[in-house]
Amino acid sequence: MTFEPTDYLPYDFANRRHIGPSPEEMAEMLKVVGADSLDALIEDTVPKAIRAETALDFGKPMSERELLHHMREVAKKNKVLRSLIGMGYHGTVTPPAIQRNILENPAWYTAYTPYQPEISQGRLEGLLNFQTMVSDLTGLPVANASLLDEATACAEAMTMAQRVAKSKARAFFVDRDCHPQNIAVVKTRAAPLGIEVIVGNPAKLEADQVFGALFQYPGTYGHVTDFTDAISALHAAGAVAVVSADPLALTLLKEPGAMGADIAVGSTQRFGVPMGYGGPHAAYMACKDEMKRGMPGRLVGVSVDARGNRAYRLALQTREQHIRREKATSNVCTAQALLAVMASMYAVFHGPKGLKAIAQRIHRKTVRLAEGLEAAGFKVDPKHFFDTVTVDVGPLQAAVLKSARDEGINLRPVGESRVGITLDETTRPATIEGVWRAFGHFKPDDDFTPRYRLPDDMIRQTDYLTHPIFHMNRAETEMMRYMRRLADRDLALDRAMIPLGSCTMKLNSAAEMMPVTWPEFGDLHPYCPADQAQGYAELIEDLSAKLCTITGYDALSMQPNSGAQGEYAGLLTIAEYQRANGEGHRDVCLIPVNAHGTNPASAQMVGWKVVPVKCDEKGSIDLADFEAKATQHAANLAAVMITYPSTHGVFEETVRDVCRIAHENGGQVYIDGANMNAMVGLSRPGDLGGDVSHLNLHKTFCIPHGGGGPGMGPIGVKAHLAPHLPRNPIAAEGAGPVSAAPFGSPSILPISWAYTLMMGGEGLTQATRVAILNANYIADRLKDAFPVLYRGRTGRVAHECILDVRPFEKSAGVTVEDIAKRLIDAGFHAPTMSWPVAGTLMVEPTESETKAELDRFCDAMLAIREEIRAIEDGTLDAANNPLKNAPHTVEDLVGEWDRPYSREAGCFPPGAFRVDKYWPPVNRVDNAYGDRHFICTCPPMEEYAEAAE
Amino acid sequence: MTFEPTDYLPYDFANRRHIGPSPEEMAEMLKVVGADSLDALIEDTVPKAIRAETALDFGKPMSERELLHHMREVAKKNKVLRSLIGMGYHGTVTPPAIQRNILENPAWYTAYTPYQPEISQGRLEGLLNFQTMVSDLTGLPVANASLLDEATACAEAMTMAQRVAKSKARAFFVDRDCHPQNIAVVKTRAAPLGIEVIVGNPAKLEADQVFGALFQYPGTYGHVTDFTDAISALHAAGAVAVVSADPLALTLLKEPGAMGADIAVGSTQRFGVPMGYGGPHAAYMACKDEMKRGMPGRLVGVSVDARGNRAYRLALQTREQHIRREKATSNVCTAQALLAVMASMYAVFHGPKGLKAIAQRIHRKTVRLAEGLEAAGFKVDPKHFFDTVTVDVGPLQAAVLKSARDEGINLRPVGESRVGITLDETTRPATIEGVWRAFGHFKPDDDFTPRYRLPDDMIRQTDYLTHPIFHMNRAETEMMRYMRRLADRDLALDRAMIPLGSCTMKLNSAAEMMPVTWPEFGDLHPYCPADQAQGYAELIEDLSAKLCTITGYDALSMQPNSGAQGEYAGLLTIAEYQRANGEGHRDVCLIPVNAHGTNPASAQMVGWKVVPVKCDEKGSIDLADFEAKATQHAANLAAVMITYPSTHGVFEETVRDVCRIAHENGGQVYIDGANMNAMVGLSRPGDLGGDVSHLNLHKTFCIPHGGGGPGMGPIGVKAHLAPHLPRNPIAAEGAGPVSAAPFGSPSILPISWAYTLMMGGEGLTQATRVAILNANYIADRLKDAFPVLYRGRTGRVAHECILDVRPFEKSAGVTVEDIAKRLIDAGFHAPTMSWPVAGTLMVEPTESETKAELDRFCDAMLAIREEIRAIEDGTLDAANNPLKNAPHTVEDLVGEWDRPYSREAGCFPPGAFRVDKYWPPVNRVDNAYGDRHFICTCPPMEEYAEAAE
Repeated sequence: MTFEPTDYLPYDFANRRHIGPSPEEMAEMLKVVGADSLDALIEDTVPKAIRAETALDFGKPMSERELLHHMREVAKKNKVLRSLIGMGYHGTVTPPAIQRNILENPAWYTAYTPYQPEISQGRLEGLLNFQTMVSDLTGLPVANASLLDEATACAEAMTMAQRVAKSKARAFFVDRDCHPQNIAVVKTRAAPLGIEVIVGNPAKLEADQVFGALFQYPGTYGHVTDFTDAISALHAAGAVAVVSADPLALTLLKEPGAMGADIAVGSTQRFGVPMGYGGPHAAYMACKDEMKRGMPGRLVGVSVDARGNRAYRLALQTREQHIRREKATSNVCTAQALLAVMASMYAVFHGPKGLKAIAQRIHRKTVRLAEGLEAAGFKVDPKHFFDTVTVDVGPLQAAVLKSARDEGINLRPVGESRVGITLDETTRPATIEGVWRAFGHFKPDDDFTPRYRLPDDMIRQTDYLTHPIFHMNRAETEMMRYMRRLADRDLALDRAMIPLGSCTMKLNSAAEMMPVTWPEFGDLHPYCPADQAQGYAELIEDLSAKLCTITGYDALSMQPNSGAQGEYAGLLTIAEYQRANGEGHRDVCLIPVNAHGTNPASAQMVGWKVVPVKCDEKGSIDLADFEAKATQHAANLAAVMITYPSTHGVFEETVRDVCRIAHENGGQVYIDGANMNAMVGLSRPGDLGGDVSHLNLHKTFCIPHGGGGPGMGPIGVKAHLAPHLPRNPIAAEGAGPVSAAPFGSPSILPISWAYTLMMGGEGLTQATRVAILNANYIADRLKDAFPVLYRGRTGRVAHECILDVRPFEKSAGVTVEDIAKRLIDAGFHAPTMSWPVAGTLMVEPTESETKAELDRFCDAMLAIREEIRAIEDGTLDAANNPLKNAPHTVEDLVGEWDRPYSREAGCFPPGAFRVDKYWPPVNRVDNAYGDRHFICTCPPMEEYAEAAE
Repeated sequence: MTFEPTDYLPYDFANRRHIGPSPEEMAEMLKVVGADSLDALIEDTVPKAIRAETALDFGKPMSERELLHHMREVAKKNKVLRSLIGMGYHGTVTPPAIQRNILENPAWYTAYTPYQPEISQGRLEGLLNFQTMVSDLTGLPVANASLLDEATACAEAMTMAQRVAKSKARAFFVDRDCHPQNIAVVKTRAAPLGIEVIVGNPAKLEADQVFGALFQYPGTYGHVTDFTDAISALHAAGAVAVVSADPLALTLLKEPGAMGADIAVGSTQRFGVPMGYGGPHAAYMACKDEMKRGMPGRLVGVSVDARGNRAYRLALQTREQHIRREKATSNVCTAQALLAVMASMYAVFHGPKGLKAIAQRIHRKTVRLAEGLEAAGFKVDPKHFFDTVTVDVGPLQAAVLKSARDEGINLRPVGESRVGITLDETTRPATIEGVWRAFGHFKPDDDFTPRYRLPDDMIRQTDYLTHPIFHMNRAETEMMRYMRRLADRDLALDRAMIPLGSCTMKLNSAAEMMPVTWPEFGDLHPYCPADQAQGYAELIEDLSAKLCTITGYDALSMQPNSGAQGEYAGLLTIAEYQRANGEGHRDVCLIPVNAHGTNPASAQMVGWKVVPVKCDEKGSIDLADFEAKATQHAANLAAVMITYPSTHGVFEETVRDVCRIAHENGGQVYIDGANMNAMVGLSRPGDLGGDVSHLNLHKTFCIPHGGGGPGMGPIGVKAHLAPHLPRNPIAAEGAGPVSAAPFGSPSILPISWAYTLMMGGEGLTQATRVAILNANYIADRLKDAFPVLYRGRTGRVAHECILDVRPFEKSAGVTVEDIAKRLIDAGFHAPTMSWPVAGTLMVEPTESETKAELDRFCDAMLAIREEIRAIEDGTLDAANNPLKNAPHTVEDLVGEWDRPYSREAGCFPPGAFRVDKYWPPVNRVDNAYGDRHFICTCPPMEEYAEAAE
């Protein structure tokens, strides 16, 4: 009998697992969109002129099993030593219950940023716990929901200080005891803004020369300093005091608030978040109440829902209008939500008593270590410390470092003759003994009597973590159930499509996620010797090469740890390049009004003036206006920033002209990579004329959104820009660094790498094609009910589409928000609201959604259209109808039902699951504070026009 | 400043994480129970006479971090080679989505057996999928929800065949091509039942000599045989045909049903469940419709709820009455639910097309392997095969095996001169080439043309997996959401206390669970060379030693893979011992009526007559009756089986007398270990006079219940019994094996080991003490509302208590079931219903529940008492009240509310969470089939009295 092998590949990850529609479903969908084949649809949608010349070829794609095997081999090339390097990165214990129930739980990691509060109460509570924890530990009343890393938090604090300071001085003081990467990033940020950075000894600070100052304790070399006097002097001069502090040390030490600090920043990494070779972790920022409107980042607040029940939401969103102002100095539009939740759970898990005990134990171990060295005749600095000391070893620095490595320990080289040692909660007696041996002296100290070597006047006098949430029973049973309850309140990708335009909420597969929690990726210090990170090196090299091939660029930097960071880093690279070429005067940046909102903020962060460019009625760049502005500003044109395909979801055919005109007028071209999911394998920004682009690995390359972070925003550049990419933050030479760690947040890079390895070039391209098919399918299924605002020349949309719901406000009093909330009743996260066009919905289904889920969404939308029609024709009351009362909750069902429609109609609209219905925990959250500025919090381009002209 | 170290240990797993009540809570609880201290309570509760003499000392307990580090070191001692050994164990790919979302998800693994269908619809659907899959693949209409392993499934099939056969012959035929461990376990089971086992060539079967026969295909040496003629002959003789078949092979091969088989058995291990050095995996059994009432194990069925909506439930429970009969031949009372769900999800994930493709690929690879060897001149057997061949290598067997190991491959030694090779879906070309090299011949076969080497007349002609569930979209997004939806329908330990008496639903901590899914524990073949399993050896040795210390025994067997298996193995060991001592005639087993229901079934499985012993009004053994019976049967007394503390939750002070009397009359003492959670560290069954006990590692030692399995039931014995413990199933000498693999289900042993390592001796003892405190707290909080049926001499209960609700049937028409269902409204799994006393509830809180959760439960119970009172006094209608209508669902809220109480009162009784309320997906499930026989399905002791007298 002859063999009849099936052509079915059961472990074809790309086509069977990652991509949603099956071949049969695709055939049906192509009928709906009126295309003969997927090839034909793509031909029709993606203009020939912008197509890539060659197909992606990354070799044979791996199955999930092959991937995990490969990852294990690569992971083994990372050598996990005990890193006592300090510098803000510490060994920590991730409680297994938190690892399993949050970091490894799709209910947490696949959630989106909590802009829709009704379906985000769980993570909002987690973030509120974080803010409470930060506020308590720092002694400052207002804390945000985290920032990207400690270094950028320092830089944000500097610009915030400038915003709120009474002093008009142009200089900012930085304590020489700050971590070197923090100093470096602050300097990078300061330069384009014309801020002079003075690094020095706080004791010699001249307060009237600066608008603010940054101090740190414990210092990078271990000093524990009381800055109360310096802060008083600053205040007397109308300047602002920023203090960077280790939150764990604050359980023992006088807090920044008690010193009078205005702003506190730091990293919560050591609260249970693995070092991960640099990230991601959650940095924090806290400030005085009167400054809260100047604070960057997200802030969770407590509000009420339509029934008057407590509900959480992102608060003070209007304060983010600071970035509308002429001197926008922050483009922050994300947080490290998942990591902030982990850190806050660590605090809930331990409570104040546990945290204090951990800090005391670390201190006691450090005292023991130091006294052992002192007994052996070494001079240990400083006299008082928390967890860090340095030792002068003269010319033997290299010998001691090597000897320590032979003991399995990384110490820190400090200057040319000192060695730094920082202990943490994972330090065991054997490690201390290993350090002693590395110094050539090992003497058992059985009679060691622990004593404090903290300064007497620096002992903390106030309580912290007094809220009951930090006094929960600490049984794992209780913790597990608390984390489950919070998770269940939220609607994430593990339950339903999240059709957010421009956010690409695609599958984050289990296989991609698994390596993230392996110790070989988690337990590396970002500044460990390079030979210990060969696995990471291989990963980063190969992923970078693939991303260059995909984008058509020549070099790549993994340093930016968010999309906005990527933009900023890209523009900095351009500015550095121009400065190097004697064209440092160029300072005009052209940005079409349909560009991502972070674009103008980023441009202003590098000191450029933003000149908006008009768009035509189709949402495409008005080429005439563009050419006129480019010519007008030719002498000073620094760059043009465009998004491709446009934020209106269209492949503009004029993109090459735009790039040519920019170049002809002396400018560089920045192509925003937010929409790369419409391009991978089909078109390369580098080929179109781009000089630099950032990539949102958390959009196109499968890093999950984590409920509002982490993300990664590496930038690709053409060869001429390569020498000007951000340097390693602690390197002496090169362009300024933008993040605290050399490779941003490397511990999540295995996700993107895994994706490329399992998809292969063909799979990645197919993903793009299906993303376009899915978007066109939705557009065409809904077009009769909701006008699709922008389409390309051939009538196709790219990977997303804008549904115009503005007419319904007039016809039925129905707003875009009503529709968004009504979708919750059907079990969906709303599409992007009112961006890029106010009063519309932007829908991006991604390639990972199946036809069934797309249909469920379309059914829900079509039913909403019918409800609107019923209002229009008077069948439904204009004020008391399912749209206005959405979302419906169990409370509505339990209480009196006085509505002119049935409970059934209210709670189970088409699309809603019956048995498996998602019930939002609250009714519509009170919007009193206003929350119209969606999408990464950056406002529409129009706001910038006035400022630049 | 002097150091004031806190005495708080943040990583004290035992006291802060595993044990529920905090020290402060315990102080409050002690007040309620009226004890001065925990010591005083324990003194009061556990009689001095039975206390252990010395405290447990297992050294310093590990923190979670230390544990995981230690586990990693031990795991490294297991060497993962490619095992091509076959024998029913195969390399397989666990889809990461299934691993992460089921095997590593507490919502699945902490669930209990689905006896309460309203809160178990998710796993019931998963198990129904499993049954459908088995039924389709085997071509037999009825399948059960899994059995322990293939070998015990064969043994169960034999005894089932005897039950249903018309033939009165006493012999059972077993195909010599069955796996050796299956033959061995069948023989073990047959001997005490007086069944002669004839192992031979099916072609020479004399059908009229047997009541049944067991065939296997593919055979253990690879033969693919059509048994149609042999089966016809059996049927003509009134005998029953059992066929053991590999379910993956059945995607290509003619199915058992098509051959006329009556019963099919096999293992679903290769459907995505790691080998795990032997288990756990789900075995299957399917049969003809007319035999379904004779089938052992659980069977999920489809029914309706009170609204007429579809609902799943355990069906045909009454058929389990077969074990009431005089010749009970099965004590099966569990399944491998978690593994069955995984296997069914693997089938859902792949669908029929995928499974067939996998099978075809394996076959093609095997053909390639075989033809390469044939081309090199080797004689490969058989001519036709699926995935297994053997090769005659003459005297070079050892050399070839070693050469293969050098290639990283395990082959199977067959006889003295042959080598067996079995391929699987993980076999890669490099492995095939490795085998060729091991045989000394490697020749690239680039021109290999795949062809079938299956017999032409054995090609499957029928469809399978035609149900839509197996044709779901195969995108991971869809699979992930399906698994989440099912999980959300169920109420497991990750959301609420499961206060099941005798089931010890305690915390299964994340740290304990993590090593289970490491490849070093998962990817070992149970019959790999011992030097590759040194990690397992260390684990098993240390855990065994600790369990011996805990129980006071001298030796331990890990082979029994369930509690009932442990009982059976324990009695077998006694019987072997007595036979060896010339006392093989002893065949009377005394069992008090308060013993676990499996006890008499197990006794009858070893051929003993069961003689019940009375209990007094306190639930304790009637010593006079016991002594009388023991004396009466002294000549033939084999054993007495007792449970300690008694199933009534009391520490009987007479236990030593019972043991003494048993020994004086020539019997051995079996102490059931189900209630060990009341004893660990306080009392040792071995000290009390026990000769053997089993331990439910899935109760006392933290293996999760997995929604109805897996479990582990190792037995500890005194030294005189040690030589008679079950042998390795493939060893030539020793007592009969009871399970398919030498160590039962070793891949879940890391859980119990981790528990002992993190708790230490003191922690384990404290767990016992707190379990007793928690039970007494509940008993005392509820005693005024619900009489507590049995208490010890001092008025204390042990680790569980029985609440008498029988009076309410008369006073208010309220049944125990009404109360159980009403507890669902409050968000609780019901306590054990009607066991050991009909019409009562048995509550076991375990030590892991916090005071807050105990109070929530007590509040719910007290509110139920008030509802009953309202019925009693006429305030509530006797037929239409919250108890009778429980559980309430969203459907109740949405529909017309015509009830004489409010929606609020119906849905939110005291104890229920508000925002986080658990909503059962169905209303009360129709009980038409009757379901009164709870607890491991074994019936009350009384039923046995008649038979024995």
